[in-house]
Amino acid sequence: MLRVDTYNSFSDSLAQAQELLHADLEEVNMLILNKLSLRVPLINGMAGYLIQAGGKRLRPLITLLSARLLGYQGQRHIKVAACIEFIHTATLLHDDVVDRSTQRRGRPSANAIWGDQASILVGDFLFCRAFELVTEDGSLEILKVLSRTATTIAEGEIMQLGTVGNLDLSEKQYFQIIESKTARLFESCCQVGAVIANASERDKDLIKEYGYNFGMVFQIVDDLLDYGLQKSKVGKNLGQDFQEKNVTLPMILLLEQVTSEEKNRIQEIFNLGALTEEDFSFLKRAMRKYKIENEILSRIAPYISRALRCLEGLPETMEKEFLRNFATFVMSRES
Amino acid sequence: MLRVDTYNSFSDSLAQAQELLHADLEEVNMLILNKLSLRVPLINGMAGYLIQAGGKRLRPLITLLSARLLGYQGQRHIKVAACIEFIHTATLLHDDVVDRSTQRRGRPSANAIWGDQASILVGDFLFCRAFELVTEDGSLEILKVLSRTATTIAEGEIMQLGTVGNLDLSEKQYFQIIESKTARLFESCCQVGAVIANASERDKDLIKEYGYNFGMVFQIVDDLLDYGLQKSKVGKNLGQDFQEKNVTLPMILLLEQVTSEEKNRIQEIFNLGALTEEDFSFLKRAMRKYKIENEILSRIAPYISRALRCLEGLPETMEKEFLRNFATFVMSRES
Repeated sequence: MLRVDTYNSFSDSLAQAQELLHADLEEVNMLILNKLSLRVPLINGMAGYLIQAGGKRLRPLITLLSARLLGYQGQRHIKVAACIEFIHTATLLHDDVVDRSTQRRGRPSANAIWGDQASILVGDFLFCRAFELVTEDGSLEILKVLSRTATTIAEGEIMQLGTVGNLDLSEKQYFQIIESKTARLFESCCQVGAVIANASERDKDLIKEYGYNFGMVFQIVDDLLDYGLQKSKVGKNLGQDFQEKNVTLPMILLLEQVTSEEKNRIQEIFNLGALTEEDFSFLKRAMRKYKIENEILSRIAPYISRALRCLEGLPETMEKEFLRNFATFVMSRES
Repeated sequence: MLRVDTYNSFSDSLAQAQELLHADLEEVNMLILNKLSLRVPLINGMAGYLIQAGGKRLRPLITLLSARLLGYQGQRHIKVAACIEFIHTATLLHDDVVDRSTQRRGRPSANAIWGDQASILVGDFLFCRAFELVTEDGSLEILKVLSRTATTIAEGEIMQLGTVGNLDLSEKQYFQIIESKTARLFESCCQVGAVIANASERDKDLIKEYGYNFGMVFQIVDDLLDYGLQKSKVGKNLGQDFQEKNVTLPMILLLEQVTSEEKNRIQEIFNLGALTEEDFSFLKRAMRKYKIENEILSRIAPYISRALRCLEGLPETMEKEFLRNFATFVMSRES
């Protein structure tokens, strides 16, 4: 068995997993490019741009790892992983329109290049193509999981939209939103991997729960990264959430601790909508002052330990090592 | 057998069919409202607004008629018809954002009330919910038809977007676009009706072809209505297509006939983007002068006759009478 290095960073663990599953991921990429559109060049242009922009391919990767971990030997995992990347890419396209983002992964976002209209319609195409692909695979169980999850993602995004501008967002509401918009898709990656591996109900439940818990942490860390407390955040504008009046966990935790004077200043900045360098520095300083990063760590620790506990019950394979590293080092991710 | 009156208008035929299938349509409406979202009030608000705004329910109606015509007695047609209305409503929501429409069916469009962001996300929700519902139904054949069709609709919309501002659009390109964005969904309504009725391949092909041909005519008439040559056009702004630089069949046919002087004036108006009352009157006068309505009639006649010919091969039922009336009188539709 190939030895999995215990790197102490998320990006190294990810890179090693990508390398190991290089052939599978390559097939996923090929399938994605093949399943775009023969008739409509704009779709290929835009989707190709997004696909080539790369991204981490984390969701397909976790799908592939889950299937292999549970003993799957066939070829269906390629198609299912491609579907998941289609759904994910569709949500990114629409998110960037909804959030009016101009950057994605360090490059201009698709809507910044091709416009909102094209992003909306190509997103629709990718959603529908995903379901076409899953239908080709022919598993009603996978169809059920993925259609339910895609619906849930939309619900999560709509819930989030409904809370824009609400500085009094509760932790409970925040966790509901990220569960819907992020964690359920990671859960589904693991679940469909288990379905095609024909895993036992017990193993399916364990890997699902891993995915859910990992997904929660992944989003919380994402929201922390947006405040740029760590050394680097690649490819996205910092402070974007706050500027768009999206209240996330770091801000919720900060507001629980600040003085009423600080709170007033935060409220003022929030109302402005535009975020100056100076105001953003103030927010960052306040987060450091109240050790929000540590607070976040205490919030995510239970998710990480649940994720790791789920893995304990599963076969000792190389794939499991990767999933374990992902969960262990997710707090160290930089992008 | 109940006698189907041969009204000589589309709206009367439609009203009679709606009346006859009142109970089924009511169940479709109930199912739609039940399948919105328990958790997210905004979805219910928006989608409820669209559903209550009514619309013709033409697509679910044709689904129900096709299933019944081919002898279906069960309850699956309700769910399948609701899915089709979900897909259709999702495309309307996104279309209105893409076209920047402010009116739909004589009322403010959803994006005019709730904004583009909500329209995008609730459209996504409806798309995904549609696939969730079809998955519940459990027929891979229907899933295949509807996922393929939804993908095709998106392709059609993207093709159309790519031709915005192109006054030299060819008839061939136009027909490709409307086939994708409109006719394939009507075809699918008929096809899935036939699938649940467990119809023979021959009957399935006949009713499919009816749906396709009817759908082509339906869209061509829609595009003609936008120029307001007929007595009334309810609930949409007139001249919207031209104003949005969407070139449709009436304009294509007009441009084939006008003098070079008239063509220059049309080009000038087109470039302006904003359409004055006076300019629009000029366009209408030109269309009347060159008898564009008759030209259109000659273009749609073959589709209508193919649609009717397909019906000839199918059982003589009341449902068939309705479908026949729809195809016969579609040219007389006013909205």
